[in-house]
Amino acid sequence: MSKPKIVVRETIRLPQGFRAAGVAAGLKKSGRPDLALFVSDLPAAIAGVFTTNQVQSATVKLDRRRLAGGVGRAIVVNSGNANACNGPAGLRDADRMTALTAELLNLSKRQVFVCSTGRIGLPMPMEIIEPGIRQAVAALSPRGGRDAATAIMTTDTRIKHATVTLPVDGRTVTLTGCAKGSGMIEPKMATMLAFLMTDARVYRPALQASLAAAADDSFNRISVDGDRSTNDTVLMLANGAAANATLQPGHPDWPAWVAAVRQLTLNLAIKMARDGEGATKLVTVRVRGARNDAEADLAARAVANSLLVKTSWVGDYPNWGRIMDALGYSAAKVAEERVDIGYDDLPAARGGVWAGTPLARLKRIQRRKAFTLNINLHLGAGAAVVYTCDCTEAYVRINYGE
Amino acid sequence: MSKPKIVVRETIRLPQGFRAAGVAAGLKKSGRPDLALFVSDLPAAIAGVFTTNQVQSATVKLDRRRLAGGVGRAIVVNSGNANACNGPAGLRDADRMTALTAELLNLSKRQVFVCSTGRIGLPMPMEIIEPGIRQAVAALSPRGGRDAATAIMTTDTRIKHATVTLPVDGRTVTLTGCAKGSGMIEPKMATMLAFLMTDARVYRPALQASLAAAADDSFNRISVDGDRSTNDTVLMLANGAAANATLQPGHPDWPAWVAAVRQLTLNLAIKMARDGEGATKLVTVRVRGARNDAEADLAARAVANSLLVKTSWVGDYPNWGRIMDALGYSAAKVAEERVDIGYDDLPAARGGVWAGTPLARLKRIQRRKAFTLNINLHLGAGAAVVYTCDCTEAYVRINYGE
Repeated sequence: MSKPKIVVRETIRLPQGFRAAGVAAGLKKSGRPDLALFVSDLPAAIAGVFTTNQVQSATVKLDRRRLAGGVGRAIVVNSGNANACNGPAGLRDADRMTALTAELLNLSKRQVFVCSTGRIGLPMPMEIIEPGIRQAVAALSPRGGRDAATAIMTTDTRIKHATVTLPVDGRTVTLTGCAKGSGMIEPKMATMLAFLMTDARVYRPALQASLAAAADDSFNRISVDGDRSTNDTVLMLANGAAANATLQPGHPDWPAWVAAVRQLTLNLAIKMARDGEGATKLVTVRVRGARNDAEADLAARAVANSLLVKTSWVGDYPNWGRIMDALGYSAAKVAEERVDIGYDDLPAARGGVWAGTPLARLKRIQRRKAFTLNINLHLGAGAAVVYTCDCTEAYVRINYGE
Repeated sequence: MSKPKIVVRETIRLPQGFRAAGVAAGLKKSGRPDLALFVSDLPAAIAGVFTTNQVQSATVKLDRRRLAGGVGRAIVVNSGNANACNGPAGLRDADRMTALTAELLNLSKRQVFVCSTGRIGLPMPMEIIEPGIRQAVAALSPRGGRDAATAIMTTDTRIKHATVTLPVDGRTVTLTGCAKGSGMIEPKMATMLAFLMTDARVYRPALQASLAAAADDSFNRISVDGDRSTNDTVLMLANGAAANATLQPGHPDWPAWVAAVRQLTLNLAIKMARDGEGATKLVTVRVRGARNDAEADLAARAVANSLLVKTSWVGDYPNWGRIMDALGYSAAKVAEERVDIGYDDLPAARGGVWAGTPLARLKRIQRRKAFTLNINLHLGAGAAVVYTCDCTEAYVRINYGE
C-alpha cells in the first residue's frame, strides 16, 4: 500500500453539499450555544457506532433503529440534557425532534438522526428545543460548521474539530468532523458525540466498516474517568457530492480512505483525552510485551483508570510504584520481576525495581503537558495504547455541582 | 443458632498473654510513630489473608511462606515504606526485620511475621528500622495496643480499633484488633493491614476459615478508590491463654466465635471506608435483585468505584443518573426499565426513571455523614453490599505530593 497524500487541517470545513448551524436555544443557563444541526443536501450513506452501556439514551435507541435504513439527511443535536433515563417520554421527545427537523427541511424523519448530551434523568424541555430547531434551520449555512461544533460542547474547554483531504479517483475529497467529550469518558465500541461528513461516495457497508475500525483505534482508546456514557454516538455521513467511483474494498484509493478516517478519528479522540474535565496533561499509556493484545489493553486501562496513578500525574513526582500496583491488579498476566516502565525515553523501573534514573530527570518529563508511559511486560507480543489525562482537584469540583 | 452475647467496645484491649508497642523510629518525616510490634507470650495459632495483587510486597511474600508453619509469636510492622518493588534486597530486609525481632525476644524468626505500608519502590532504610525495633521491644507492654495501632497509620486520620468479648465454655474470651487503611483500598480476598489477637484457643484450620469468611464479608466489601494494594495483609493470633476447649466446628460456642470475628472485622472495615483519603461521607451501596450474588457485587462495585458517582457525593445533588450509568456499564445484567434507586428510605428512581421525590428531601439525605443507596435490579435474588466514600478535592491533593 503506497502512502496516500492525506492532508490534515485543525479546523472544520464542510464538504460539498453540507450545511450546518449552531444556536443558543436556551437549554444552558450560561446562554452558550446548545443546539446544532448538520444537513446533507443530498441523500447520504450513513454509518454509526454507539455506546455499549446497557442503559442508553432515547437518542441512541432511536438512531440505532434508523441506521438500518442506511440513508441520512440531517443530524440534530442538543447539549445540556442527555435525554437518558426518561422512559417512553424521552423516546417521544427524541422522535419529535427528528419529526420537526424533517418537516422544516421537507425530509422524511426516518432520515433524520438525533443526539443529546448533558444531565441524565431530566425531562427534555421541548418548549425550548422546538424554537431552537426552527432557529437552527434558519441559520443553516455551508460555513456553519464551527458554530455547530461549538454548540455540541458541554464541559469541553476547547472546540474539537479537524478536516482531512485525500485524493480519490484523481480528485480531492474532503472528510471533516467534530466531537465533544470531556467527562464520563471511557467509550467502548463507540465514544461521546462525534460527527463526520464527507463528499466522497462510499458504499454503505464499507463506510460502516471503515468507521467501526477507525473508532476502535481512536475513540475506543481514550479514557478520562473510566465512566462509559449512556449517550456515546459517532455518526458519519457520505453524500457522494464528489462524484467519485464508489469507494469500497477493491477501489485503488480504499486504503487511503481507511487511513484518512482513522487519522481524523484519532485526531478528535486525542483532543478529547487532552481536554478531559479538569485535566492539565495528556498521558499516552503504551503497553508492549503482554501475552496478547487483549491483555495489553487490560493492563493499559488499569493504569489509565487508576485513581492513584491519575492523581499522581497532577504533581511532578514520578510515582512508578503506583503503576506497578495497577499492573499487578489488572486482569492481565504480569510477572513483577520482568516489568519495565519508561517515561518518554527514560527508564524508571527495570525488572520491576527502581532503574536508578535520577528523580530530577523523570520529574522534568512528568511536568510536560504531554508525555508517554512506555510499559513492557516482557511476556509476549501483545500491545495496546490508551490516551488519558491526569485527575485534578478541578475534576472533582466540576462534578459535584448541580 | 442462639444469639451469642457479643459485646463490642471501640478500643483496643490486648487479651491475656499479649503485649504491644508503637514507637517513632524516624521513617516518617513528620516524626509520628511508625514502628509497631505485637507479641504473644505463648505460641499462638496464626491465620492470615493477603492481597491478590500479582505485584506483592516483600513482606507479603515472606509472611505467606511462614504461614504454613501455623504458629506465630510476633508481628513487626513499619509504616512509611511499603517494601514493595524492591527485588531481592526487599526480601532480605523483610527477613532481617523478623530475625532481629526474634533475636531480641529469644524466638525463632520463623514465628515472626512482618508487615510494611507506605511508598512503593523505595529501599528500606534499615539503619532507621533496626534501632526502631530495639526501641519497640524495650517498650512492649500489655497496655501498648493503642500505641501500636497508632504506629501503623499512614494517611489515616483516625485510629481504627475495636474489641469484642464473647463467652466460650462459660468464660469470657477477648478478640481485639486494629487496622490501617485510607488510600489504595479495594481489597480482594484481603485488605490493607489489620491485626487481630485473641486469648481464645482455636484449632488452626478453623481459625483460618473463620478469618477468611469474615474478611470476605468485611474487608473485601470496602473500596476507597478501586486501587488494590501490593501490601494488603490481615493476621490473626490466637494464643489460647483463656484455656477454653479448642474452638472449632462442633464446639457449642463456634457460631458465637464466627459471629464475633465477623463483627470485629466489619467494624474495622467500615472505619476504613469512613476514613478514606479526603472522604467526608460513608456511603453504603446495597444492591438487591441481581441475577446472582456475583452480579450484585459487580453492580455495587461499579457504582462504588465510579469517579463521577463518587465526586457527585461531595455535594448534595442526588445525581442518580450517574448511578444508572454506572450500573449500565457494569458487567452485571441490567434492564434499564426495572431499576429502582433509593437514598436511605426515599425513592429517587423507579423503573429506571425519576421517581418524583422532591429534590430537597433527597438532598437532605445526601448531606448526611453516612447514607445508604438501596438499588434493586428486579432480575433475581442476588444481593451484595459495598462500603465506600466520596471522592473530594482533598483526595487529589493527598495523592500528588511527593
